[in-house]
Amino acid sequence: MAKARVYVTLKEGILDPQGKTVLRALKALGYDEVQDLRIGKYMEVSLDGDDLTELGSRLEEMCEKLLTNPIIENYRMEVED
Amino acid sequence: MAKARVYVTLKEGILDPQGKTVLRALKALGYDEVQDLRIGKYMEVSLDGDDLTELGSRLEEMCEKLLTNPIIENYRMEVED
Repeated sequence: MAKARVYVTLKEGILDPQGKTVLRALKALGYDEVQDLRIGKYMEVSLDGDDLTELGSRLEEMCEKLLTNPIIENYRMEVED
Repeated sequence: MAKARVYVTLKEGILDPQGKTVLRALKALGYDEVQDLRIGKYMEVSLDGDDLTELGSRLEEMCEKLLTNPIIENYRMEVED
């Protein structure tokens, strides 16, 4: 059994209205040190199998097909035992 | 200028319908090795200031007040130069 983590972020230049809203709210609360905030997704995946290389390449396929939108999002992933 | 990352996950025992839906979709696509999948949030924050300890404790406050829901979510954070 392996555990994987996938971090999904919006590509640079893609608007992030959710992040902008949170940024404004933080400033309204007096957190003036916050210059920018962008919100992405974080996924924890439990995978059956021992071959981490194989699992990694299967997970990459899942990311491209379903877990992310490669047009507007970047992702990075980690797979470990 | 410092950069921080905040990872937000649902607490154990809290239902994750979004994750369950994605899990089912992956299985329907033939990815039978996926045992579980939970979806959280990932935030990248740019902070003005040099005192990482101070910035970290301010960010922790932001997490408790606005960025996360401490009743149902856990979070961890990293602050770096």
